[in-house]
Formats: sequence, structure tokens, C-alpha cells
Amino acid sequence: MAKRIGKQTIELERKIGILDSAAVVGQKEGEGPLSRFFDYSSPDIMFGEDSFERAESKMVSKSCEKTLEKAGLSLTDIDLICGGDLLNQCAASHFAHRNNGIPFIGLYGACSTLTEGICLAALFLDGGGFSKVLVETSSHFCTAERQYRFPLEYGSFRTPNNQWTVTGSGACIIGSDSPFGIYIKRVLIGKIIDLGITDQNNMGAAMAPAAADSIKQFFKDTDAKPTDYDAIFTGDLGAVGTKIVREMLKEEGYDIEDIHSDCGLLIYDLSRQNVRSGGSGCGCSASVFSSYVIEKLKQRELRKILFMSTGALLSPTTTLQGESIPSVVHIVEIEVE
Amino acid sequence: MAKRIGKQTIELERKIGILDSAAVVGQKEGEGPLSRFFDYSSPDIMFGEDSFERAESKMVSKSCEKTLEKAGLSLTDIDLICGGDLLNQCAASHFAHRNNGIPFIGLYGACSTLTEGICLAALFLDGGGFSKVLVETSSHFCTAERQYRFPLEYGSFRTPNNQWTVTGSGACIIGSDSPFGIYIKRVLIGKIIDLGITDQNNMGAAMAPAAADSIKQFFKDTDAKPTDYDAIFTGDLGAVGTKIVREMLKEEGYDIEDIHSDCGLLIYDLSRQNVRSGGSGCGCSASVFSSYVIEKLKQRELRKILFMSTGALLSPTTTLQGESIPSVVHIVEIEVE
Repeated sequence: MAKRIGKQTIELERKIGILDSAAVVGQKEGEGPLSRFFDYSSPDIMFGEDSFERAESKMVSKSCEKTLEKAGLSLTDIDLICGGDLLNQCAASHFAHRNNGIPFIGLYGACSTLTEGICLAALFLDGGGFSKVLVETSSHFCTAERQYRFPLEYGSFRTPNNQWTVTGSGACIIGSDSPFGIYIKRVLIGKIIDLGITDQNNMGAAMAPAAADSIKQFFKDTDAKPTDYDAIFTGDLGAVGTKIVREMLKEEGYDIEDIHSDCGLLIYDLSRQNVRSGGSGCGCSASVFSSYVIEKLKQRELRKILFMSTGALLSPTTTLQGESIPSVVHIVEIEVE
Repeated sequence: MAKRIGKQTIELERKIGILDSAAVVGQKEGEGPLSRFFDYSSPDIMFGEDSFERAESKMVSKSCEKTLEKAGLSLTDIDLICGGDLLNQCAASHFAHRNNGIPFIGLYGACSTLTEGICLAALFLDGGGFSKVLVETSSHFCTAERQYRFPLEYGSFRTPNNQWTVTGSGACIIGSDSPFGIYIKRVLIGKIIDLGITDQNNMGAAMAPAAADSIKQFFKDTDAKPTDYDAIFTGDLGAVGTKIVREMLKEEGYDIEDIHSDCGLLIYDLSRQNVRSGGSGCGCSASVFSSYVIEKLKQRELRKILFMSTGALLSPTTTLQGESIPSVVHIVEIEVE
């Protein structure tokens, strides 16, 4: 049985591993520094579809198919899909999986969705009754701009703290073993933290306190320290949020600077790709995790890591109503054996 | 350990019970047939707040507080909250729980959210590491009209097949025991089913096939039959969907008519309350479950039931794009010992 350690951390009892993963991205991401790690980058932002939303769904289907293919499995081997995305009513995931015959748990955790899904999958598998769970999430620059900001045709300006929504979908299959020896050891489900940031163009600053809270809690619960890890990845804090989370943790006595990377800073070349403060969106941490991070684990260049997607739980309506931005950050501890 | 039975059903190993529950509703619901079962009905549709969205968040906080109060617990006794709602980015739940210090898993399952949350909570508790999980969901007539249909001020007409979004929030606490002997035995996580219904004013018809699929699968997996149960509750199929699900199951050899009730038909007096085809929204099944159904179980008037919230996974954007309506239905089997 899984065991609670300290206040929020859960230690898994059984061997719960990552069977394989895949990432499907857009052209801009395919031209970035992680280019060679992605399974597919589409030259067509529409992915052959006639709307941005259908394009995003197609991307989800494609990342799931690629993952199954790499793992040597077919959809019927999967017991459960855990997924969700940024679209209102999580439409990208729902339309990708309709009528595919696989039980589905819909998640909304904004950009924290990937690690939310992995936490769930790991806990379900540890508890019994499941053998293989597929986790997926996505974001698409054009659906996100239309829904959260302005129609693309407006050509609106972006502030320096703004982040660029990644066009990408990442998927992974969690099961009771891993051909690569990549295992999930402990998970932490985050609390909703809101320190009063109201600027929707500065989500890194809104999410950083939630990331700091979860990391601090994990270290407290487990008596671990930053030097126990080869790397700590955050989802999409970007340049602004990265600085803040490091400072907040330093004040608490945890110096993560040498081992911390943010997926939002890894996926683009900030000096060249005009993405302001870095990448964001569910697809940001998902596509970096499902390609670059898993590859580094497979190659044993990384052996023990913390991975956490970071989610800003605002809505356009709450922003218009002057509300601040609540955030949530879940952590997955992964070790190569 | 939990055990898979047949294709989709999971049988829990440990005793997982309902500690208590509460339902907070609006005035219209408080004037309906279930009036005496609700814990609180607000004469003020705004719940003392200055926006519909804040009103819905307030209602969520209130149903959680009432549940804790009835169970004799405080928030710090809770390990995890599983919640979600119909608002874009599930804003009602996120704002209700910000800074409350409790780990949070955000769900999007449209009106299936209550049973989605109970399935998760039950599986987590069975797997270990958790002792008490709070499940909540909500809907509010005014936030739903604004988001899915038209601003209230338009005074738009409603079709006969239309359903009325319930203003209500239901919450329950799941733990390793139940003072009332109310236990969750088996759960089924549904598949996303879409038989091509495109009329967003007829969601009962869109959801009925998913309900029929889940019920049929549960009976197949477990070798159970309708007569094994005192009652089978669906979430918000309304008058149209209720007729369809009964017919679809009859064709499969399962006659549920004598024991089937739909929460959307229980919560309003259709002849008197001008709600067309009945109630809908996450708050519909949640407030009926957390009040009327739990009370009938406490009183031992019901001893063995299937409860399933029914979710239509459309979005206003997908509807405008001519897409049909995918749906999902999760089942919880409950028994009084």
C-alpha cells in the first residue's frame, strides 16, 4: 500500500514505471533547442484540420499513437486514459478520445495537468486494478490566443513578461514495469496557492509561489535536499518565475539553482525565437518531459529527478472581474534503477 | 488491493465509506420536491456576492463547510480535495479552495464530476496514503446561462427538450469508515461515447447512450442484474434522456424502469416549475446525492444502489463548429451494511 510521508508526500509501494512516451509539437517548437528530441514536429499549424481546436485534438491523438507505437502496445492494452487541456471544457482531449473504447478520467489543472495525470496514474496503479494508464495533455498557440487573449488576426502586442503558449502534446504510459528502468517513487499533490498576483501577462510570477510551496513541502516531508537530485524541472515558470522560485527557496534554505531547469526556458531559444519570457501551456512541460527528460533518463544522463508541471488556475472571466491568479503545482519523483 | 472485474469495473478491497455529505442550493431548488433534504437553500441567488461566479464559489465553500460540520471534522482533517465544475477553467472550485492549505486535484467531467470525484477518492483511499478525501462539485444557473447560452438579460426562449441548470453544490467526505454503514463497493470509469447528437438543447439524448453503455458494462462485468438493486440513479438525463436510456437498456435485456430515477427529474416539479425537460448541471446529481440519496441510505430505505452522474463534454466552441456531443458516465456502487 502507498504510504503518506510527512504532510503531503505519498510513497508508492509497488514498482510503478514509465513504459514509454512521445511528444508531438508545432513548427516553432521543432525549430527550437530541443528539436532532435521530439517525435514529430508539424510544418502545418493546422495538423491537416480545418480549425485550431481540431488541430489540437489531432495533435493529442498523434502523441498518444506515437507513445503506443514506441511502447509496442495498442490502444486496447490501455486500462485508462487520464487527460485534459487548456481549452474550455477540455475539448481537445475529449474529442481526441471519443468512441475509442477506453475509460477516461478528465482533469483540469491548467499547465499542471501532466504531473497531475502522472500522480493519479501512479496512485491508481499502486492501488491495484489497473495495469497500464495513458497520461496526455496538450496546448496549441492558436487555440490559447483565441481563448485567453485576442484573436490572432488582431496582431496584439505582447509584454516582456508574457510567455508563448507551446503548440505541443506529450503523452506517456505508466505501468507496473519499465523497460528502461525509469520508476516513479513518490508523488506530491499540491495545494492551491494565491499570493495576489493579478497580472495575467505575468503568470510565471503567479505560479512561482505554488512551485516553491510544493518543493519546500516535499523536502520537509522526505528529509531530502536539492543535492540528492540530478535535476529539478519546473513546468513553465519562464524567466520571471524561475528567478522568483529560486529566490523563494533560497530564503527557506534550499539552493536549487545549479540543478533547476524550467521547461519554458528549455523549449525555445529566448534570444532568437521572440517568445518573451519563455514557453507556457500544458503542452510545454508535457512535450519537454515526454521527449528530452525521458531521453536523458533512458541514457542515464539523469538518474534521480523531481519533475513538476506548474498550473495557473485563472480564467478570462475571473481576470476581467479583477481576481488574482491561484496556482497549483504537483511533483513526481523519478529514479532510474 | 483493488481488483479489476471484467472489462471496466474495479472492486475495492478495503472498507471505503461515506462519512457524511451536504447540499447547498438556490431558491428554486429549495422550492422543489426535495426541499426538506437540502442543508441550506439561499433566498439570494448571489449568495451575498457581487458576481454570479463568486456566488458559485461561495456555494462550494458553504457545501464543504456544512459537510465538515456534519461529519464533526475540520478542514485540517482532510488529506485531499477532488473537485471541479462547469465554469471555464473550473473557476468555482479553484477560487473556493485557494489558500486553504489542502492538496487539490482538479477534475473536468462536466455533469459527471461528482461520481468522477467519488471514484477517484475511493481508489485513492483503497490504495493507501489517504485517510479522508472531500469531493465537491457545483453549478449555478446564472453562470451556466452566461457561459453556455445567452446572458440572462436577453430573456431567450427555451426549447421543450432544454434542461434547467441547477443552482447547487454537493459535497461528501469519503474515508475508511462510515458512521452510517454506507460503503462504496465497486466503481466503473466510463468511456467517452458520442453517437452523433449535435443539438446542444437536447443533452439528455446525447448523454443517454453513455449512461446505457456504462450500466450495461457494469452488469456484464459483475454478473449483476437490475433486480439486485433498490435503486439506480442517473445524473441529469431529464425526461428525454430517461426515456432513451431505459429503451436502450431494454433492448440489451436489462429492464431498469421500476428502480430507475433521474436526479434531473427528482429535483424539480416539472409540471409546476417551468424547467422543461428537468434539471442539469454538475450541481444537479451532486445536490440530490448529497441530500436525498444519502438520507435514504442513512434511513435504510435504500440498501444497495448504483449512482452515476452523467456528463456531456461539449463546449460552446465545438458546438459552433458543428461538432456532436461526446459524453461520459462513471458509476459508483453503494451498499449499506
